[in-house]
This record gives sequence, structure tokens and C-alpha cells, in this order.
Amino acid sequence: MSPPNIRALLASTAAQSDITVQGWVRTRRDSKACTFIELNDGSCLRGIQVVADLSLPCASLYPHILTGASVRVKGDLVQSPGAKQAFEVLAKDVELLGEADGTYPLQKKGHTPEFLRTIAHLRPRTNLLSSVFRVRSRMAFAIHRFFQERDFFYIHTPIITSSDCEGAGEMFRVTTLPQGSSAKPETDFFGKPAFLTVSGQLQGETFACALSRIYTFGPTFRAENSNTARHAAEFWMIEPEMAFFDLEADMSLAEENVKYLLRALFETCSEELEFFNKFIDKDLISRLQHTLDEPFQRVSYTDAVEILLKSGRAFEYPIEWGHNLQSEHERFLAEEHFKSPVTVFSYPKSLKPFYMRQNDDGKTVAAMDVLVPGIGEIIGGSQREERLGLLEAAMQSHGLDVESYRWYSDLRRFGTVPHAGYGMGFERFLMFATGVSNIRDVIPFARTPGHADF
Amino acid sequence: MSPPNIRALLASTAAQSDITVQGWVRTRRDSKACTFIELNDGSCLRGIQVVADLSLPCASLYPHILTGASVRVKGDLVQSPGAKQAFEVLAKDVELLGEADGTYPLQKKGHTPEFLRTIAHLRPRTNLLSSVFRVRSRMAFAIHRFFQERDFFYIHTPIITSSDCEGAGEMFRVTTLPQGSSAKPETDFFGKPAFLTVSGQLQGETFACALSRIYTFGPTFRAENSNTARHAAEFWMIEPEMAFFDLEADMSLAEENVKYLLRALFETCSEELEFFNKFIDKDLISRLQHTLDEPFQRVSYTDAVEILLKSGRAFEYPIEWGHNLQSEHERFLAEEHFKSPVTVFSYPKSLKPFYMRQNDDGKTVAAMDVLVPGIGEIIGGSQREERLGLLEAAMQSHGLDVESYRWYSDLRRFGTVPHAGYGMGFERFLMFATGVSNIRDVIPFARTPGHADF
Repeated sequence: MSPPNIRALLASTAAQSDITVQGWVRTRRDSKACTFIELNDGSCLRGIQVVADLSLPCASLYPHILTGASVRVKGDLVQSPGAKQAFEVLAKDVELLGEADGTYPLQKKGHTPEFLRTIAHLRPRTNLLSSVFRVRSRMAFAIHRFFQERDFFYIHTPIITSSDCEGAGEMFRVTTLPQGSSAKPETDFFGKPAFLTVSGQLQGETFACALSRIYTFGPTFRAENSNTARHAAEFWMIEPEMAFFDLEADMSLAEENVKYLLRALFETCSEELEFFNKFIDKDLISRLQHTLDEPFQRVSYTDAVEILLKSGRAFEYPIEWGHNLQSEHERFLAEEHFKSPVTVFSYPKSLKPFYMRQNDDGKTVAAMDVLVPGIGEIIGGSQREERLGLLEAAMQSHGLDVESYRWYSDLRRFGTVPHAGYGMGFERFLMFATGVSNIRDVIPFARTPGHADF
Repeated sequence: MSPPNIRALLASTAAQSDITVQGWVRTRRDSKACTFIELNDGSCLRGIQVVADLSLPCASLYPHILTGASVRVKGDLVQSPGAKQAFEVLAKDVELLGEADGTYPLQKKGHTPEFLRTIAHLRPRTNLLSSVFRVRSRMAFAIHRFFQERDFFYIHTPIITSSDCEGAGEMFRVTTLPQGSSAKPETDFFGKPAFLTVSGQLQGETFACALSRIYTFGPTFRAENSNTARHAAEFWMIEPEMAFFDLEADMSLAEENVKYLLRALFETCSEELEFFNKFIDKDLISRLQHTLDEPFQRVSYTDAVEILLKSGRAFEYPIEWGHNLQSEHERFLAEEHFKSPVTVFSYPKSLKPFYMRQNDDGKTVAAMDVLVPGIGEIIGGSQREERLGLLEAAMQSHGLDVESYRWYSDLRRFGTVPHAGYGMGFERFLMFATGVSNIRDVIPFARTPGHADF
């Protein structure tokens, strides 16, 4: 239907006559007898070299074939005499599809990430961003494969919700009323205030309590006014939820999940990984390989606090039992103490949401966080409170309106089962997988305070 | 990590000792010597029969094991003497995990779809809805497989957008300002008005003009005040976009896409298809098989109008050149005239958005719609206008602000290429694939005017 892409041509094992290749010019340089075009179509990191003789009828076009221009080349795929590539295209005809003049913003290499964000519509034409987004696509697919191979069902939990969720203060409101309208919420589109979801978990649980194993993979939103390298207002989350799983099984699945994705990363993105390792983070591949090879350590929150207290480290945030682990604590545990990924479990219940299962000690809940070197927390999850009485008590102690969660507590009223799940921020995982340090550079069009362009 | 699910047990080829099975009770009935539990865990349509002797120590529990209760059974998987199943579970112990009392709303079969929508958190426990959502999951995965196998990259285009899109009148606004606030839009989270996307196409094009072949698969939104069986405010769209594709290649890919999904449907959802064919639509399987087997007919809009005019039919909406095809016209073409799926191409430009490529006749654009029997339009697409001058002229004649689309027209300014794409509404496809006639019943939690519950 359409000619082979450059990835397919570069994977050739033999020369081919009369092929067509199309793409965008990265560079062009002249020799005495011909012009060399480095052509890229985004199908892979590498481009293909096109050699076009100055004696061809189309030679008058060559001066117009500048960086960024699009061309269609007909010719033969031949073994290259050069050392840099196995095959190149010997052109018979070069057609200039679209010019790019001197105002093309990606003339030269070495633009700052900040500048590239201002041209988010053009930056996928760079080696760095095209590599990031190829990895993003293949990792998204690997996530689906991981769960589908294990009989999980993909559920599209709602984006717009009227649920009185935790974190409501940081939710975006969705409305069709004009800005400044004093109309009552009852006259709004949904007849009451509606928001963008912060998590599909609660709705996901309703499906886990019917189909046993489900996962969500969709956009979630936080209206947090944070301008850091790790926060975005719109990001994608993966949230599996499993009936008949306890915390132990939950932690095992999370570890299996991370390792599966890393294996897929090495298998399907090796060119990109080498590029990131060379230009972004020289420790990337060894860190990922280490994460893949080592069994994840497991330590209770209480023991983790002991380790931190005995470490003799002067942390910026002093730690004590009952306090959240900060990023510096998480990284100390993973990078220095255990020197491996580590799953911390059984957190103080005061630190965690109402839906987590209370442990028998009355002080902790069956929560878990997976910490990886270089990033810290990459997965957070828990066994859910399946006992109606304890769940409703937890709602009340968290100041929630029990009645508005009746649909959720119904899962405990009718055929309740032990169940567990976790959430993984997709962008957080991608930062781990690529070494890219700013979340804005792993999202096609990042949404942050003051920015919803394109 | 966790015991095999019922799907795996039913696929057994031999008896197995000491297995564990968990699930929800669909029915229980007693004989003289034992009780029979029909157990379902949602992993497949069929349940497994558990036979528990009245002499077991757990027998005192049986009266409490009612429809909807959750149980864990330990026992042996044995060949069943009954004709209805190959294997059944001979229980050694039955543990009641969670009771369901007489207030459980799914006691009996035969609830109306309307009633089931009011208990959207429990309806996945019915045969119909669990089947729909298993199909939804497998078809979503098949969509990813189709594109990934063809070197397409999955792009997460933004959900929140400030783009001055077509259809802005029917967009949801996203805000962090309180309802009724008279604060200026500049003080809102994004510093200007922001909306929920109606399509990822324009942003998708920026990636197609870098990675060549991309697709989106994400939620889109319409604030249309329609209460029909075909409209929802939140729905999922698949939008592939291909550089170097013309309309011809676009139509071929769309046909290949539909057929790929139908093949996957027959291969992975045969139990569910038989169920739908029996209880929902007796023509379903034959209609789907016909769509899979027949080459899609192609007819220009102009010829299609001729066919309709000559049909002698008294349509509710009389047709003439320049008018939109209505559902009745589309269905006449697919179901009666061509008796096969049909792709209509080259529509009057006055009917279509600014971004579609103008044909040489000056009157039509390179648009296409795929019509299938029983549903009508299932895919709409076009070749995009890649010529800067014609694109900007079309923007102006559509009353759009050329400057605010500068990022989009940049794709034509720098290395423009012929490109094309299409959109498929996922729910529309699912209605076609399942025979379910109301969009609310193929969405986990449907959002419609007045409804954003759960």
C-alpha cells in the first residue's frame, strides 16, 4: 500500500532495485560528483544515506534541498562503500515535496530542551524527542501486552467524574457554563459539579469485583500549582486491580511488571537506549540492567525508618516514624543501602488514603511503594479494605461522606473479596527508562501551570 | 502467584488434584447429597460447576451461599458426568468470603438495560455486560496490535487544549476558578481558557510529520446536549495519521483496519459473539462475517447521491447534491444498494472541515466515510491539505484565526508532505461488533447530559 519505511530498508539483507524512500532531510552535503542526503522518516533513529549524482536531471533541485525539507527518492538500495552504513540509496530521481527555508527552527543541532518545548509541534523531528516518543509508544504497547497475556481486562474508567474523591481540592472542574456565570450547578451539563479524574482506582475496583483482573491506562489530572521537573497537570497512569490478591501477590506483580517492561525496553528500543546512554545519562543502561537483574528487596516502613535513623546521614528532612518518606530517603534506601530496587510495605495508616486495608496492629495499612534507583517511587499500591465496617469507619475518620461512596462500599456489601492493586505513573516510568530528567520532555504536549499550548 | 482462573480451568485437558477456585456465585441449588454452585469469576462467559457434598464440615455454610456471594473452593478438577460441561470441581472445602443478602440487586436474571445503568458498579457481574467489557478490552488490544505491527507509533495527544478548535461551541471548559467567580481567564490555571479535546488529529499530524505513521487512542469529549442511543459526552477515539499516504491508501488502511478487528473478534471473542447473537441480535454473526468477507465498495459522494435519487425511495430527509448523507441514506447504500460495506469519497467541501485536501474540481475535498450495514458511518477520514496557501485560504473561509493555527500551518511551511488519516469512534465500533444498540451499554460509566455518576 505504501513504500517500505527507512527502518525496513535498513533491516534489508540484500540490495534491492527500484525502491522508493520518503522522509525529511537531516543534512545534505556535496562532493564533486554527487550530493549526499541524510534522510530520516522517524521510523527509527537512524536515517538512510541517499547518494544523488549531479548528472541527474533533478540536480537543479539539490540547492533547494535543505535541512527540514521533505523529499521522495526513487532509486536502488545498494551496499554502501562507507563504513557508517551497510546500505544506501543510489538515487535515480529526487522529488522535492516540501521545502524548508532558512527560517526552519531546527537548522542546527544542540538546541536546549527549553527552546524545543516552545516548538513542541516540530521537536519530534529531533533525534532526542523522536527517540523518546518511539520508546513511549513501545512501552505503552508492552504495558498492554503484559496485562493481556495475564488475562487482565483493559477498562476505560471515566475521565469526567462527580465522585467526591480524595484530593478534590486539586481537581480541575469541567463545565459548560460561561466563565463568571452565576447559574446554579444544577443547570450545568451534568446537573452537578463535575471534575477531571485523579485516579481510576475506585471505578476500577468495581470491575475487578466482577472480571477479577483489570487494568486502566488513561489520562489523569492534578490541578497542583507546581512548576517542577516532575509535575504535570495531565499525565497517564496505569492502574491494575486484582480480586483475590493480597499485598504479597500485589508486590510480586508490581516487580514482574517493572521487569517485563525493562525486558521489552532492551528488546525493542536498543538503538534509542544507546542514544540516551551516550547523550543523556551515561549510567542509564547499567542502572536499568541492574534493576532487571536484581530481585527487589522488601522492607517494612518501620524497618526502613530504622535503617534511615541508623544511617548517620544528615537528611534535609529528618525522618521519624509516622512521617512520609521523602525523595532523599527513598533514594538512600534504593541507591545506597539496598543498592537495588526496594519495595517498602506497611505504612502508618495516618499517611495513607481511606481505602487501604488496615493491618492487625491497628497502626499500619497494607500499602506498598516500589522505589527504584535514580527516581525513587515508581509504583504505589495497596491491598484494599474489603471489610465493610472497617471501610466505613476509615471513611468517617478521613472526613468523607459515607453515603456518597455507597456504590463503592456496595462492593463490600455484596460478595466482598480480598483485592489489591497499584498505580504506576507512565511518565515517571519513562523518565526512569530514558534518563530524561524533565517530565515535559516525555509528554507530547505538556500541560503545566500557564501552559496548554498547541 | 495466584490460582488459575476459571477460563484456565475450563480449558484444561485433564483432571487436576488440589486446585483452588474463587469467584462469585451465580446460582446454587441443592440435591439430596450435595449442593451445586455455579461459580463465575469474569475471566470468561462460562462459569464452572462446583459440587459440594452435604457431608463436608463446611456444609453448614451452604444456606448462606446465595447469588452474588463470593467463595473460595478447594477441591479436585474432575470430568463432569453432566452434559453441560467437560469438567467440574469436586469440593473438599468451601470458604464463604463475602455474603450477599436478599438486597443484592442482581438476584434474578432479565433486568432491563435501563435498570442496570443505575447500578453501573454492579452490572459487570451480569453475562451481558461482562461480555461487552471483555470484548471492549480485547478489541482495544487488537487496535494496538494492528497499528504496532505496521510500525505506527502510539501518541498521547493532549486532553486539555487551548486550541481554538472547530466545534468549540460544544466543548467542555476546564477551570480551577470557583463556579461563579468573576476572575479573569488570565488568572485561571492555564492563563487562558482551556477545553477538553474533541479530537487529537491536529496534534497527531505534528507527529505524523516527524515519525511518519502514528495513531492516537484516547478519550474525546462533546458537550452536545443530545440524549440519544448514539451520543455520549465522553467516548474513545482511534485516530491514525500517516505521512506519504493519499486518500486511496487511507481508504485501503481503513478497510484493512476494520477487517483486522473483525478477525480478532472472531478469534478471541467467539463465546461472547455467540451470546450476543442469541440474546441481542440474531443477525449479528452473519452481518459481521459478511463485512469481513466482502471487499468494501467504493463510490464517490456524487455517484452516491445519484444512486439515492434514482432509488425511488421516499427518505425522511430528501437528498440532493451538497447535503449531508443522513443515517437513512448511509444505511440504504450499505444495506440495500451495495449490500456490503461501502466507502464514500470526495464530499462537497462545504460539508467538511478546513483541513481536508481540496480536489482539482474546486468543489469537493478528499474526504472519505466508511459505512457498514446496521450502523452506518463507522470511520471518517481524509487526505489533509498539505499546501500552505490553500490551507490558509480554507481557514479564512471557515472563519478561523489563521495566526492561532500557526503551529499547525508550520507543518506545511517546513517540509510539507502529503498525508492522510481517519477517526474511528471506539464505542460505535463496539456497537457494531456486539449488536448492543445503546452507547451507554458499551461504556463502563457513561457520561451523558445530567449523568456523571460513580
